[in-house]
Amino acid sequence: MTVSVPRGFRAAGVAAGLKSTGANDVALVVNDGPDDAAAAVFTTNRFPAAPVQWSRQVLATGRVRAVVLNSGGANACTGAGGFQDTHATAEHVAGELGIGAIDVAVASTGLIGVRLPMEQLTAGVTAAAKALSEDGGQDAALAIMTTDSVPKTTVQHRDGWTVGGMAKGAGMLAPSLATMLVVLTTDAVVPADVLQTALKQATSVSFERVDSDGCLSTNDTVLVMASGASGVTPSAEDVTEALTAAATDLAMQLLADAEGSTKDIAITVRNAASVEDALTAGRACARNNLLKTALFGNDPNWGRVLAAIGTTDAAFEADRVDVTINGVTVCRGGAIGDPREGVDLTGREITIDVDLNAGTEQATIWTNDLSIAYVHENSAYST
Amino acid sequence: MTVSVPRGFRAAGVAAGLKSTGANDVALVVNDGPDDAAAAVFTTNRFPAAPVQWSRQVLATGRVRAVVLNSGGANACTGAGGFQDTHATAEHVAGELGIGAIDVAVASTGLIGVRLPMEQLTAGVTAAAKALSEDGGQDAALAIMTTDSVPKTTVQHRDGWTVGGMAKGAGMLAPSLATMLVVLTTDAVVPADVLQTALKQATSVSFERVDSDGCLSTNDTVLVMASGASGVTPSAEDVTEALTAAATDLAMQLLADAEGSTKDIAITVRNAASVEDALTAGRACARNNLLKTALFGNDPNWGRVLAAIGTTDAAFEADRVDVTINGVTVCRGGAIGDPREGVDLTGREITIDVDLNAGTEQATIWTNDLSIAYVHENSAYST
Repeated sequence: MTVSVPRGFRAAGVAAGLKSTGANDVALVVNDGPDDAAAAVFTTNRFPAAPVQWSRQVLATGRVRAVVLNSGGANACTGAGGFQDTHATAEHVAGELGIGAIDVAVASTGLIGVRLPMEQLTAGVTAAAKALSEDGGQDAALAIMTTDSVPKTTVQHRDGWTVGGMAKGAGMLAPSLATMLVVLTTDAVVPADVLQTALKQATSVSFERVDSDGCLSTNDTVLVMASGASGVTPSAEDVTEALTAAATDLAMQLLADAEGSTKDIAITVRNAASVEDALTAGRACARNNLLKTALFGNDPNWGRVLAAIGTTDAAFEADRVDVTINGVTVCRGGAIGDPREGVDLTGREITIDVDLNAGTEQATIWTNDLSIAYVHENSAYST
Repeated sequence: MTVSVPRGFRAAGVAAGLKSTGANDVALVVNDGPDDAAAAVFTTNRFPAAPVQWSRQVLATGRVRAVVLNSGGANACTGAGGFQDTHATAEHVAGELGIGAIDVAVASTGLIGVRLPMEQLTAGVTAAAKALSEDGGQDAALAIMTTDSVPKTTVQHRDGWTVGGMAKGAGMLAPSLATMLVVLTTDAVVPADVLQTALKQATSVSFERVDSDGCLSTNDTVLVMASGASGVTPSAEDVTEALTAAATDLAMQLLADAEGSTKDIAITVRNAASVEDALTAGRACARNNLLKTALFGNDPNWGRVLAAIGTTDAAFEADRVDVTINGVTVCRGGAIGDPREGVDLTGREITIDVDLNAGTEQATIWTNDLSIAYVHENSAYST
């Protein structure tokens, strides 16, 4: 299901032995057309992994016929040999499907700085090609998991057309461990340039506003493919709306499954001079370890909210900023507000509202707390 | 001793009941002259605490006769009432010493957003004034501790003149818990403008290159006072050298005592196009939670070093960057170098050398790992 729900798509997920656990680790999603329009957003990290370098070339054509994804190895910082591995993988997929390598996008996730076991990966691709099916979406979603505890999928039905999707990762565009990978599919008729504009807009208000730990991966990839199999040509606005709905659904699933987190935190900055200011102030909170540990400890430490936004260049006057945590305005005019004892932080959901009193714009950043389990998971990962 | 070692200074530290533990919590350092030149560097946080706002006014005169410091409350984000508390504290010190309030700098550390118990603080000031002595430096150093496990002090003897100092905190200019406070004293004859230039240079290569958790406090203060009691007038270069030595000594003590840390990490970025580039790349590593947790787990995860510097705008080519961890060049040319298994991370000291191969400048940033104890301490602080 999921990516294979829209017409024109088949998918598969198989276990190729890249993961020591024997779980699925190679996924294949194929667009059988009639169209093969595609668009993507990649990491801006200046050490892009080999599959990102390769897929950027593929996407320059605006066309993708298939995407192969693997967990169990990021193929990042692996030099010319690593790039050849990605190229060989695309060639192998192309051979199995009778298409060109330039039609095949590649995405990888796992440990940086380790070469992929190509013999196992190639055998996995062969097995995945054999297993391709219109029911293969769930297997594919399982195959891209790393520390994810559950697969993340979405389906958005519209008037005669559908968007499907799958994702792995734990917080983004600053993903936590290794990477965020997302594949979206639609059977709508959408030209590549419309698809690119719509995807960029959709990611800017979803994945790019989830910031689990501020760490930007070398492998982040969000890919969308349009088969046109529904025969329906929605407006650009409708495409943007549906992709945004799918991306937001997946983003919230990533947040809820962030490594070791015990809180889902929505930081809304209101009455900012600009959306950019609101995002800057929100991100400063989302990346402040002192605030994130305080929230882990159920401590409504609003001083750390102010200390965080006090490091930014957002427009505000220090004596006009209000902070409300879970409905209690604990800070008024940059000073002491209602008693912090009134704030109940025992649940998983936390809302922090910062009113800058400096304009009319607003934005929300979603993040998690910084927990003992986060440290444990991320200190034990590769060893 | 410490701040009271240079001639012309007396100090005291007393327990006023601000700390529930009954430990020392009010410190007083008095410059008996003949000179009263002073300089300071304050936090750049846009929510400066009341004592920072006050002390900035005092320092505008280039003169300080006394500084009063308290732990047990930061007096930050406390509005007009909080500022009045600081003013009243300075007035009370002035009354005890027979000087003007404008001669008295104030520094506070503790929880943000809580008013100080003025009755206890005032009584503490009176007691501290009575206890002032040329042997009071150690008591003063104890009185400014919060989560510090040991007091931090330094003495630098030069040719006929001396610099003394004390500090509290755990990592800066991004201090961890609450704040970094530093008081330096010297019996050299130094005009205020020379002192300011020397202090700025000294802090820029010491405290500003220690980055424990990237969080900038509302209260950070580094104050230096010159009594001229030695009668010696050193050159500006010699003053800068001695202040830098004192500041570096204290900065390394802060690093070693950072909350819950198990590693002292020196990140040196070499062959950068500029010192600024080297600092930017070093800070990106120092603030990367994934790298810091990996090091806590004794994992030489060099991919996370590249992923961190890959988010910066420092000049480099991705395929020309080398990374050496504790002497093993685990990454060459942005790709796999010597086996990571050869890296021994079991000790407390870790050196990470990043060679950008993009110029001739270099800089070192010092930081700590991100440990389970860090999360524990910072989640349990105010509750």
